[in-house]
Amino acid sequence: MTLASPDAFEAELRAIGAAAARQKVTEAPVGPDELESELRAIGAERYHILHPFHHLLHNGKLTRGQIQAWALNRYYYQASIPAKDASLLARLPTTQLRREWRRRIEDHDGDGSQPGGVERWLALTDGLGLDRDYVTSLAGLLPGTRFAVDAYVHFVRERSVLEAVASSLTEMFSTNIIQQRVAGMLRNYDFVSEETLAYFKPRLTQAPQDVDFALGYVKQHADTREKQEHCLAALRFKCDLLWAQLDALHFAYVAPALPPPGAFRP
Amino acid sequence: MTLASPDAFEAELRAIGAAAARQKVTEAPVGPDELESELRAIGAERYHILHPFHHLLHNGKLTRGQIQAWALNRYYYQASIPAKDASLLARLPTTQLRREWRRRIEDHDGDGSQPGGVERWLALTDGLGLDRDYVTSLAGLLPGTRFAVDAYVHFVRERSVLEAVASSLTEMFSTNIIQQRVAGMLRNYDFVSEETLAYFKPRLTQAPQDVDFALGYVKQHADTREKQEHCLAALRFKCDLLWAQLDALHFAYVAPALPPPGAFRP
Repeated sequence: MTLASPDAFEAELRAIGAAAARQKVTEAPVGPDELESELRAIGAERYHILHPFHHLLHNGKLTRGQIQAWALNRYYYQASIPAKDASLLARLPTTQLRREWRRRIEDHDGDGSQPGGVERWLALTDGLGLDRDYVTSLAGLLPGTRFAVDAYVHFVRERSVLEAVASSLTEMFSTNIIQQRVAGMLRNYDFVSEETLAYFKPRLTQAPQDVDFALGYVKQHADTREKQEHCLAALRFKCDLLWAQLDALHFAYVAPALPPPGAFRP
Repeated sequence: MTLASPDAFEAELRAIGAAAARQKVTEAPVGPDELESELRAIGAERYHILHPFHHLLHNGKLTRGQIQAWALNRYYYQASIPAKDASLLARLPTTQLRREWRRRIEDHDGDGSQPGGVERWLALTDGLGLDRDYVTSLAGLLPGTRFAVDAYVHFVRERSVLEAVASSLTEMFSTNIIQQRVAGMLRNYDFVSEETLAYFKPRLTQAPQDVDFALGYVKQHADTREKQEHCLAALRFKCDLLWAQLDALHFAYVAPALPPPGAFRP
């Protein structure tokens, strides 16, 4: 009796799961611009801007308690991003690549003079009236949020550098969602201000800079159809984990509104 | 500027998250029977028998398509259990412990003469009219299922042997749910038979045998309050990941019934 190791097992599962893609894998790679179109098509179908929770959030349909739940859960995602990036940084082979990725960590952790993204997210949870110690304790986090975010950190730690970089490409679609969010939330909620939404403004310049590099890297290094398929799968995976976080929020706090035992209750 | 490694970061997050428990950690350990009571209290509050999806499932309130979605998603959990157990087996220090844990893998993977649990689960998905290749391809899996199950495999791979063993203790509560499930499903659904539910019958004898060992191990080895707290947290984590799987199913297929892009549609 042979016992597969978990890694071998996961590889086998992935191989089975990729059956539908296998025919394509033997094909020649598409050109860089066609690859970019394929990546953008994934966003058009799966990016979480399409999730009903975001429609409600941006259109003024949520209560303050529901927005607290969103901000509290999303804190764990924000706080995990520099850990995710540090695990990739540790595996990058050149000074140039490490410099690029180090900048991302600085964007999120700050440099001691400017607050980073994690700190700016806490300005939002503060502004919504949440206790900062409670937020950072993660005591009220939805398990669904934790599992989705941890899946991202594990993915970046375990997959190839190319797949890890490709998984960051949801930023290609983020400028649009941020503009909708900030405008919609300022218009629709009197308990939200420019100060509490301070997280988002720097992202409007940081994200396109990130994308310039990461998209260029993927277009250059995905030089076989198999690697291109891996990049497309990585972006699909990333879209899925953003979407799953909203599923968990929507289920717990909107409809049917059943927060699991131990989770935050507004 | 110091960059925390992901492991250090996770440890810090856990330390912060355990703040509420910290006062207790300096206390003396409770006796083995009191520890068992504390473990059972977690089940009474958090075991997924309490989830509304299970009430619907057992009481005949679901459609065949909804039950297909449950069986298809739960397949990934079943198929990952031997991988989880193999990763613990690889870290166990004695022949006696490895024998005990090897038996669990045999229960799920079979021995070539009797079908194991994974194979018996496929008898259920077959009986429900699902294509076996589609089920095992995982193509229609809910991302929420994948993230919760993978979180379990990662937990067992990364935490102490004691915590890994403690996380198996949801089996303390499984006899009851299996009896409810089998009786309820046979009574309420004409497309379900004893053959399609063949997965469950051996579990009624296997699970108590597993529990005898694992509960005894935890009661013996959790000899400080800190270790006991870790065991309680491991069981809470496990309850959460079973619960989160039902949240994802309920959200996608019951209410509001919004399966994410790419997921199974009955």
